[in-house]
Formats: sequence, structure tokens, C-alpha cells
Amino acid sequence: MATLGAEMILVDRGGVEIRFPFSPRLTQQNGFVHAGAVTSIMDSACGYAALSVAPGQAEVLSVEFKINFLAPAVGESFIARASVKRAGKTLAVCAADAFAVKAGEEKLIATMLATIMNMDSKPAEAGSGD
Amino acid sequence: MATLGAEMILVDRGGVEIRFPFSPRLTQQNGFVHAGAVTSIMDSACGYAALSVAPGQAEVLSVEFKINFLAPAVGESFIARASVKRAGKTLAVCAADAFAVKAGEEKLIATMLATIMNMDSKPAEAGSGD
Amino acid sequence: MATLGAEMILVDRGGVEIRFPFSPRLTQQNGFVHAGAVTSIMDSACGYAALSVAPGQAEVLSVEFKINFLAPAVGESFIARASVKRAGKTLAVCAADAFAVKAGEEKLIATMLATIMNMDSKPAEAGSGD
Amino acid sequence: MATLGAEMILVDRGGVEIRFPFSPRLTQQNGFVHAGAVTSIMDSACGYAALSVAPGQAEVLSVEFKINFLAPAVGESFIARASVKRAGKTLAVCAADAFAVKAGEEKLIATMLATIMNMDSKPAEAGSGD
Repeated sequence: MATLGAEMILVDRGGVEIRFPFSPRLTQQNGFVHAGAVTSIMDSACGYAALSVAPGQAEVLSVEFKINFLAPAVGESFIARASVKRAGKTLAVCAADAFAVKAGEEKLIATMLATIMNMDSKPAEAGSGD
Repeated sequence: MATLGAEMILVDRGGVEIRFPFSPRLTQQNGFVHAGAVTSIMDSACGYAALSVAPGQAEVLSVEFKINFLAPAVGESFIARASVKRAGKTLAVCAADAFAVKAGEEKLIATMLATIMNMDSKPAEAGSGD
Repeated sequence: MATLGAEMILVDRGGVEIRFPFSPRLTQQNGFVHAGAVTSIMDSACGYAALSVAPGQAEVLSVEFKINFLAPAVGESFIARASVKRAGKTLAVCAADAFAVKAGEEKLIATMLATIMNMDSKPAEAGSGD
Repeated sequence: MATLGAEMILVDRGGVEIRFPFSPRLTQQNGFVHAGAVTSIMDSACGYAALSVAPGQAEVLSVEFKINFLAPAVGESFIARASVKRAGKTLAVCAADAFAVKAGEEKLIATMLATIMNMDSKPAEAGSGD
């Protein structure tokens, strides 16, 4: 997130919002922000959302996610909003939407559905994905 | 891909392999290569695989993908291998596996299933995702 | 849907709700309604949601979907609610949630993210998925 | 699976094949076998594949899956082949392909990527998805 100049501006229980400004470093040849940057921020937002409802001193890992790209990532800044659909002892399922902000208006550019694992419930397993 | 120092070392019709070396720039605090870098390379491999079977002077866009993270991305270099499951006029479906290479041995670290759109069949639509 | 005794009780532009009652025919050995029945209803709800915003005399086909199962499907009746996240000329992306209803209370049991193709824009292609 | 007249004809460690014959009961108005039937069989194949590598007297549950529909389900019989991409203590990730068989030839009609949970490692949690 540091590389993207991102900041988390809001965290409540189960809900997270991350913003990052446009930067030429993040663009592809066509001037759109790279899908990889948008994906990473959304994945992070889902992780923090899961963390916000995890018991104890949890550490979380992405098991998997699916992302749909809905519109080009063109804007002055970008927002990823994640929320927890369900949290269990081991797994949390989170949804996130990403928006491009242009002249004060938000446009939906991507949507994600993610499964996150709470690693504290599984001290003996080191790998992501399990 | 340039930022990752990646190279595509093999392309045949419907099959693509991209390799990139370990770099401290790509790591998280725990020394693993960031999931975002692995994801981007796999997404690119799927795109190039779709492109290799697309008719004409195609341009392709990722509609969506799902990725499962299977093991930490620890290695001297990384490989993403993508292949086309089915290619139609408008959409191609591609699968990709990513491997970490350590002392000459490959370990599966992630797997992806992606839907790619051939934009040449849709000249009037500018956005990704449609 | 007929086999499930389902009814669509609400349709507005981009939003669809399908309900079906509990039936012993739909259960597994443990008395839960089979995931396949829940999945089919959610897929149908996504299809109808896409159809409600499609231009002309559209016919739609599911390109792909991802579903997360969140809780056992135990209840007197079940509801699938779908909405359109984005609709383009060729593709629509829909999200759906499924709920089990018990003593008047809804419990979230599954969530889906789906890509739907408008077949009217592609008269020459017969297959699902393209 | 009984309702579909399905049989599992091959099980080795991590690999499962399920076949079921065409039946008019499974078709939609257009004569294609319903996507829900194909999806259920593929989900079952993934579950049995995960079970075949699970430790102890395991019981497994689908956490989530993604499916891409690649061609209409038209044929005399259908095959779902699943294999385990990675199995951990808690989660297994499986891939499956479905084929329609017509005059002895197999045609790929759908592909799935699934996350399965081994419930034996989590005796206290009853719900699917966790």
C-alpha cells in the first residue's frame, strides 16, 4: 500500500475504506491505472475488513478472490470499500467495490468477492491458502 | 511487466509462459513476494494466451478472474503458465498456474481461472468488462 | 424453477427477487436444502436481473459465476435477491445474496457474483459462454 | 447424485470422475441439460476429490466455487473430472472439467475452481463455509 500512496480513511467493525491518489507510476500505456493496483487495494481492503472482526490478535491471509473489472480505472483518486458478508472462526467472506473519483463523482470500476482465513485459529499452518 | 523484470519465454497457440526473478522490491514485510505481483503476472499470462488465439489484430481485456493462493511466494524466480480452455469470437476462458522456483524445483503457489474479452469484435465499446 | 416451486415476487429495473418454499425433495441426507438448488435459484435471479436491463428482446446466458456458501440452507423458505452491478451492450455483472427464512427472520446463506451475456448482441454465436 | 442417475467410475488419490447419462428430466426448454445439474456434479466431483486426500474420517464442505460455462450441455452422457490442486489440513483447492459425450467424442462444456473445507479439523463448527 505504501508504494501506491494509499491511506485507510475509515475503519469500523466489518467495514473498511482505502483511498489512493492517481499516480503516473500506476498507469499502463493507455493512461488507465493498472488493474493490478486496483486489485491489490481491493484485496487489502477485504483483508482489513476480515481483520476488523477477527477474534484476538489475528493475522489474516487471502485464500482466494474473484474480481470483475467494470470500467477503466480513470480518475483523480480511487476508493476501495470492503465489508464482511460473514465471519466464522476460520474463514471470513468479504465483498469489495472500487470506485474512480472524477470531479467529485464516484464511478464503480470493479467488484470483488473474497475468502479470507484467520491464521490465529491455525497456528501450525504456515502457508497462505491454508 | 517491465516493473517486475518479467520476460515471456514461450508462446505457442493458446499457451504462454512468463517468468520473473525474485526482487526485494516485490516483497512484503515477511519476505514473500506480494500476491499482487503474482496475480498481475498470471492475469497477463491469461491475456497473452487469449491473444494468441484471437482472430485478427485483436486487443484483449480481462473481464474477470478468480485466483486461489496455494502457498507462500518464496523462491529465486517465478513462472506463470496460462492456457486457453475455450476461445469464442467474443470471449476466451483461460486457466493459469503460478510456480515458485527454488533450487531448480517448481512449487505450485497459485491458480487462476479468467474470462478475457476480444475487443476487436466490439469496436464501439471502450470499457474493460464490456 | 418450476421443479423448485419457485416464484419471482418482485422485479424492478436491475433488481430481482425469487422465493421458493422448503421441500423435502430438495434436501440432502442431513436435512439441509441442497447447495445445487440454492445455486440454481441465485443463477436464475442474476439472469433475470441482467434481462431486466438488457436492450430489446434479449436472451441472456450465464458466462460464469462464483458462489460462496455461508451457512447451511435450513429454513421454511428461501429468497434469492439479485441486482445488476454494471450492464454493458454485451455483458452484465450481477451480484446475488440468498437467505433462509425461519420464523420470519432472514439469514444470509450464500452470495454470488456472476457475468451474464446478452445474446441478442451476438446472433451468430450459439454456445453458452460466448 | 441419485436423482441424476450419476455414477462415480474412477477414484484415485486426488482424482475423481463422475458420469451421468442424458435424461429428459434434466433439460431446459431448449433441450440442453440444465446448468444446475452440470454444476452440481462438478461440485460433487470436487468434494470427492478433496475427500480422497483428506486425513482421517473426513467430512468435507464446499466453501466456494467459480464455474465457467463453455458450451451447451448437449450429449448422450456427461463426465465431470476433478483433481486436487493443493490439499492442506483445513482447505483443499480442486479443479474440475465437465465434458459432453456424443458419438464417443468428449467436448469440454464447463470448468470449475473450488475451495473445499475439511470439517474434521474443525469439530466445533457446524456451518458450511466455516
